[in-house]
Parts: sequence; structure tokens; C-alpha cells
Amino acid sequence: MTRTFTFDIHALRADLGGIEIEDNPALVKQKSRDFFWYSPVLKGQLDHITADLVATPKNEAEVIRILKAAYAHDVPVTPRGGGTGNYGQAMPLSGGLILNLAELNKVKSIHPGRVICEPGAIMAQIDKETRAHSGQELRLHPSTYATASIGGFVAGGSGGVGSIRWGGLRDIGNVLRLRVVTMEAEPRILELTGWELHKVMHAYGTNGIITEVEMPLTAAYDWVDVLVGFDDFLAAARYGDALGNADGLLLKEIAVVAAPVPHTYFLRHQKFIREGQSVAILMVAPHSLDAFEAFTQREKGEILFRSDKAADLKGIPPAYELAWNHTTLRALRVDPAITYLQTMFAPPTHIEKIETMTRLLGDEVPGHLEFVRFDGKITAMGLSLVRYTTEARLDEIVRLHEDNGCPIFNPHRYTLEEGGMKQTDEIQLAFKHEADPKGLLNPGKMIAFEDPSFDFHAKKTFLFPGLQRAG
Amino acid sequence: MTRTFTFDIHALRADLGGIEIEDNPALVKQKSRDFFWYSPVLKGQLDHITADLVATPKNEAEVIRILKAAYAHDVPVTPRGGGTGNYGQAMPLSGGLILNLAELNKVKSIHPGRVICEPGAIMAQIDKETRAHSGQELRLHPSTYATASIGGFVAGGSGGVGSIRWGGLRDIGNVLRLRVVTMEAEPRILELTGWELHKVMHAYGTNGIITEVEMPLTAAYDWVDVLVGFDDFLAAARYGDALGNADGLLLKEIAVVAAPVPHTYFLRHQKFIREGQSVAILMVAPHSLDAFEAFTQREKGEILFRSDKAADLKGIPPAYELAWNHTTLRALRVDPAITYLQTMFAPPTHIEKIETMTRLLGDEVPGHLEFVRFDGKITAMGLSLVRYTTEARLDEIVRLHEDNGCPIFNPHRYTLEEGGMKQTDEIQLAFKHEADPKGLLNPGKMIAFEDPSFDFHAKKTFLFPGLQRAG
Repeated sequence: MTRTFTFDIHALRADLGGIEIEDNPALVKQKSRDFFWYSPVLKGQLDHITADLVATPKNEAEVIRILKAAYAHDVPVTPRGGGTGNYGQAMPLSGGLILNLAELNKVKSIHPGRVICEPGAIMAQIDKETRAHSGQELRLHPSTYATASIGGFVAGGSGGVGSIRWGGLRDIGNVLRLRVVTMEAEPRILELTGWELHKVMHAYGTNGIITEVEMPLTAAYDWVDVLVGFDDFLAAARYGDALGNADGLLLKEIAVVAAPVPHTYFLRHQKFIREGQSVAILMVAPHSLDAFEAFTQREKGEILFRSDKAADLKGIPPAYELAWNHTTLRALRVDPAITYLQTMFAPPTHIEKIETMTRLLGDEVPGHLEFVRFDGKITAMGLSLVRYTTEARLDEIVRLHEDNGCPIFNPHRYTLEEGGMKQTDEIQLAFKHEADPKGLLNPGKMIAFEDPSFDFHAKKTFLFPGLQRAG
Repeated sequence: MTRTFTFDIHALRADLGGIEIEDNPALVKQKSRDFFWYSPVLKGQLDHITADLVATPKNEAEVIRILKAAYAHDVPVTPRGGGTGNYGQAMPLSGGLILNLAELNKVKSIHPGRVICEPGAIMAQIDKETRAHSGQELRLHPSTYATASIGGFVAGGSGGVGSIRWGGLRDIGNVLRLRVVTMEAEPRILELTGWELHKVMHAYGTNGIITEVEMPLTAAYDWVDVLVGFDDFLAAARYGDALGNADGLLLKEIAVVAAPVPHTYFLRHQKFIREGQSVAILMVAPHSLDAFEAFTQREKGEILFRSDKAADLKGIPPAYELAWNHTTLRALRVDPAITYLQTMFAPPTHIEKIETMTRLLGDEVPGHLEFVRFDGKITAMGLSLVRYTTEARLDEIVRLHEDNGCPIFNPHRYTLEEGGMKQTDEIQLAFKHEADPKGLLNPGKMIAFEDPSFDFHAKKTFLFPGLQRAG
């Protein structure tokens, strides 16, 4: 199947009177991009991508008007939140319309353990309001907390800061309810809860537009950022693992980054870190600090930095902006040749697997581990840096991981399946056929819809035929 | 070594002018007992035990005066909180003085994530104050929440409701600070934090008197009590395990009790439970209920009872009063021949071990599992009921467990070591020699102090020579 999109954007525009529209090509292109350029592969493939128009609805009624008009004119629609994705999640491969949800940004109501908000609400802003209201905060957020929207996180993220305590977004209970508008002649409004949520979560907006999000909250604390140094990466990894398993210590973030990354690339923290030190990046609840220090001393970790004891925090970013994909970002800023991989080191042998990969790849793939709960167990997700040379070598590094029992979620692919489970998500596919029968929502991201005969085991990269001027 | 205690109680009493003293033998005996009688073995050994006097200090200064006087007169001192222990923790084996801490019961201050209180404060009362103050509550409490003191919990408990989330009291961070008075000519006041806490935690008051407790707090919710029924005990056990591993669901309690116990012995809930049903006893955060229901439906559990949907809660006890040792209590009330055992089913093979023991012992030992975090992993602690016949058969049941890789923490022993790790706790022993050189604090409970040559591997029960009119 080769899909091409033929549409009259002017006709669509004529139907959108009263709605905020942007057509300045430079500004449209800006809103057509995310942080795909962390990947040299995606940079080559997607750099030229742009939409034709950006529409910025003010409320759900305007969302429905836009979808209805786009449906009538066969115009692709790609929803966008903060644009902080890394895999082109919100990039309009076939042009058309960007549905910019940035102005649907209200926190609607706050309850014990729950917040209801619009999809474009920025996560740091949600927490600001829930903290002021009742000392609560979101369970999970990405390292792009300050700029990422809650709808984008649910539609394109998987976990992040807080996953050491709560697991990932996919874990039932970590998203409570989504209100979704379908892409049909007469758009329907659906309220999804329980297992139904998986229809649209992490579907990149390919099968519905989220217009309201209900998320669980947890107790907010004045988290203390701590860096702990070790002379050896594996000692640091074992420490991170033990810390994650210490049930009485309340932490929100445990990352471990191998030398020489911390000293070389964490420029704002460089003065605290010695060359050759591997570092654990932590967020600790204030009331756990005494016990945490006793624990760290026993584990022979050296406390390099504590945000509650620092003489001057000016210019020092929060710890979570050293972690998750901000680790990659900080390295990239110093050395543009750096990219990264996402690896699953499955328990109970995760430490052994990390040891194996470290021995095999050394400083070509400096270790970066994010400790998380996964199906109830503490394990390490790898967000290893990669000193990139060629795409062939990158593929070889991927294969080396997989041959050693470490599955890769490839961040150098723009499709749902290739970046994720490498198989059809039948639930999401069925829901796309129902909610987006013309296949206009974010085309090219769900292989199972675009090319049902695609063989996920053939180790061939999917190239979306509808990709504009394919790179 | 045979220790005998010779003392002049009248001389002590003369030194305690101004302090509240009780010497009515019936009332003194009442304050010399706990719930040791759950064990037919301890009932035989300890039923006659009583102190000579009860002293009830009003503040730490009075505690110090009492200890100083008792030291001078060589009078044994056994501290007592709510008296809710099950192993004679607070029973004065050699008579002497009961140090009743019930009136040191103030909540002194409440902070984000922390509460500071006196040792005699009742746990439900602490939570009442911390909830009203800032929507916080203790992480952990026993099923005797309504009557147990915080000092007694730290000195004689190990975990309980909340352990599914936070692990046990021993896990660093679950107790923040203890203020302890020593038993010396000039009592010292020590402030213990970090690993130092293990010197006196779960030492039954044998090596210091706790006069102030600082505990971590967590967010309080209006927990919903839920009972979920299964036709098969092992299906219920697997459900409890899966539920504990569901990282996005916030629960405070997961217990699983085998048929016929729930229908037969949970009289207040009998109308909700069918004969032959094994039951999971749960406390679920309100904002997790929708996701919890979806999860339970997928796992084929039948929701029998929800406290938020019950027509009438009159006479219905809270769920935690069906769990932990309240399960035993409810069975005992109906059938006095019932007792219990405490078993460790270590992960990752805990479900297989439960299956083995169920097959071997059937309804002679009806299953009761408490799911907890243990070193970061969800596992099941057994609090199996036992249809008691003879002490010899009970010992055989213990051996059967141990032969099948399921260590027993024997609740039919009154010593620290035999009920626990069956080895000397060198840290507690060293601290006893330092803080209680005359060995006057709760004599007979720490074998390593009473008889350093005792062989823990000889499978012989320790009999404290100082036990009054030994039973």
C-alpha cells in the first residue's frame, strides 16, 4: 500500500474562520519539529519535514471544528504538545495541519490524589498549582518537565522521574482517565479509563486527540538533588540498584552515568565532579536524607553535591536536567557526534548484563542507567550514550545488545513499532481503524496501519511511502 | 550462668515518691501481660508472670529518676507501651518493675514527612493528629493500630499495614530517630539515627528506654477496604502477588487468607463471603479504585465488599482488623484451638513455596499471607493459622517448613533470637553491655546476654533460668 495525500489546504483554511492559524513557513516549520535531531539517523530522514498550517484551538469545541474540517478536506492532522519528543512523535510526515494544543493548558480541578487538566498544560505548571493547592504533585515527569505538556507525555512518553517509585505510564493506575475526540465525519467524544486507556496512550496521537487528562497525584516534597561519586561505573550501578531496593528511603530519581560523561559534559556541575568519576544522580525526600547518608556511607559512595547544602545554586540546573534524555542533551551540546540508545536490562540479571555490555563496548557506549520499577522489580533502563560513527556501526551496536539479551527500544526510528515492541499493537490498530478511518491522524507512525504486511522480523527499517520528499 | 534477682521492692518504692505507682496485684498482673496467649506454648510458660509494681512516669525526667532508683536497688525494669505484643515482649519474666509509658503519649511536632512523638502515643491517635495537621499519616502500623503505642511498635514490632509499600521497620529510613535513656548509675540520654537505630529497634526494651520517637510520614488517604474472593487459595495468592507488583496501583495492605477461614471466622464480614472462598483483604487509595477494579476483573477476582459502597458499615471493623495478627485473633475467638506460625516465603519462588506447604499441610495449617516489600521485592510473609494439637506436632510443622526452604520466625518463643534470626545480634548485645551493664532491662529476652554459650543450632528451646516459678 502506498498512501499519498492530496489536499487543498486553502479550502481547509477557509473553513477555519475564527480559529488561530499560523502559515508563516518559518513558524510552521518550528512547530513541525521536536528533538528528533538527537538521532543522526532521524536527522537525515526528517530534517526537511514541515506542515502547511498550524491551528491553535482555544477549547475542545474548536478542536472538534478543526478535526471535522480536516476530515472533510482529507488533510492530515498531527497533534502537538510541548514538542519535546525525541522520535519525531509530533512531526507531520505528510504535511497538512499541526494541531497545536498549547492553549488548551488549564488545570481544571485538583482533588486528593488526582488532577484534571487540559492536554497542553505544562507539567511543571501543573505541579506548581497542585503544590500550592494541597501539597501534591504528579507521580511522573520527563526531564523536559519545564516545557513538556501532559498530553504529549501521555501520548508520546513512557516514564521518567518518579518511575523509580511508580513504574511507567503504561502501568495501570498511572493515568486515570483520558477524554479523546475521534477523527470522523462527526467526531465523537470518548472517556477512557482502566485498560481502555491503552488504546491511545503512547500512540503518538495516531488514533484520537486527547482533550482532557486525569492523572494521579502523590505527596510533593522539597526534593533534594544529590550527586554521589564512585571510581567505578559498576560500583555506581550496584549502588543505584541497592538504593532502589532500599524500601524505607524515599527517592524520586536514581540515574547512574559512567565516567567520563559527568565531568566532561555536565558543565554546570563540573566543579563538583572529579575526572574519572561515575556519578549517581538522585532526588531524595528531605526526611529521608539522614538515612540516605548512612546508607551511602556504608555503600562507600562519595557525596559530591547536595542542593540543600550548596553555597550558591545560581546557574545549577535541577538534578532531573542531568538525567533521562537531558544526559544526552548535555553530551550533545559539548560533542555533536554523541547520540544514544535505549536498552532494557531485565531483572534479576540486570547488573550482569550491564557488566557484559560495558566490557564489550567500553567508552564507545558510555553507560547511562535509569533505575525504575518494572513489573514490581527494580531494574535499569539503559539510555547509554553512543559515540556515533556510521549508521552501520550503530546497527551493529544494537545487534550486539540484542545478541546479549538486552532488547533495544531504538530511538533512531520514527514509528511506534520500531521504537517499541517491534510488533503490532492490535488494540491501538483496531482503535485507529475505528477512530480515524481515513488514516489522517499523524500518518506514517503506525506501521501496522500503513503496511499490514510489514515483516517486523526482517530487520529492515520501515520507510513511510507518504514521507514528503523522503530523505 | 544462672541469674537470680534479689531486690527489695519496698526500698525502691520509697525512692519513687511523687511518681504514679500501682501495687494492686490484679492491676499489676494486668499490666504485666500482652497477647502471648495466642500461643499455647507461651500460655503454658508465661501465664503466671507478674511484676511487683507498675510505675507510670509523666515525662522523661521521671523515667530517669525511676531507672536510677531501680539501678541502685537492682530491680529489673520491663518497659511497656500498649501491651499489644504477641511474644511476651513486655512481660517481666523476673518480676520487678513495669515501666508503663502510657502517659508519655504526646505528639510533639509535625513536619513535612516527619512526626516527633513520645513513645506511649497510640498510633491511631498520632495519625489523627497528623491527618488533621497536614493530611499525613504513619507509613506503617500493626493491626492493633487503635491500641498499640509507637514506642512498642518500634521496640517489639517488625512491620504491618503499609509494608506492601515501605517494607519493614528494619529498613533504613522507616524510623528516623530514637531518643534513648540508658540503665546505669547515671542514666545517659542518647540520640540515635541511621544504622545506630538498629541497636535498640526490635530489642524489646532490653538495652535502653525509648523516650522520643521520630517517624517518617506519608500522604494520608481515605483508604477503601476491599475484599476480593477466589475459589482457590493459590489463585488468590497469585492475585495478591500480581497486585503487589502493579506499580501504578496505590495500596496500603494486601493479605490473602485461605478458605475456610474467611467465612468461618470473619463473623462481621461473613454475609459478604461464601463458604469455600479464599479472600484477599485490601486497602486501596480512592484514586486507584477504577484502575484497581479493571485489574481485578482481568485477574478474575470477585469483589465481595467495598467499604465505600457498603450500605451500612455499623459493626464492620476496618480491613486491617482482619489482617496481620487480627486474622489469628478472629479465628481464636471462634476456635480456641487455633494458633499460628510466621513464615518467610522468599522471592522469587515464594508462590511455589506456598503451593508446596499448602499441599503438605492442607487445612491443618490454613494459609494466611501478608504481601510485603522485602529488600525491594514483593514477597509473602506467612502468618498461617495452625489447628493446634500438641507442641510436638507444632515443632514438626515448623521443621516441615524449614525442610522445604521456608524459614520460620517462631511466635512460640519469648526470646529475641528464637523468634527471629536464631543468631546473636552482636550490635544489640554490645549495646546492652554498654547501656544496661547490670542486665536489669527486661531480663531473659536476649539469650546472647543471658547465656553466651547457648547453641542456636542445637534445636533446643532456651529456658530463662530467671523465669519466676518457671512454668
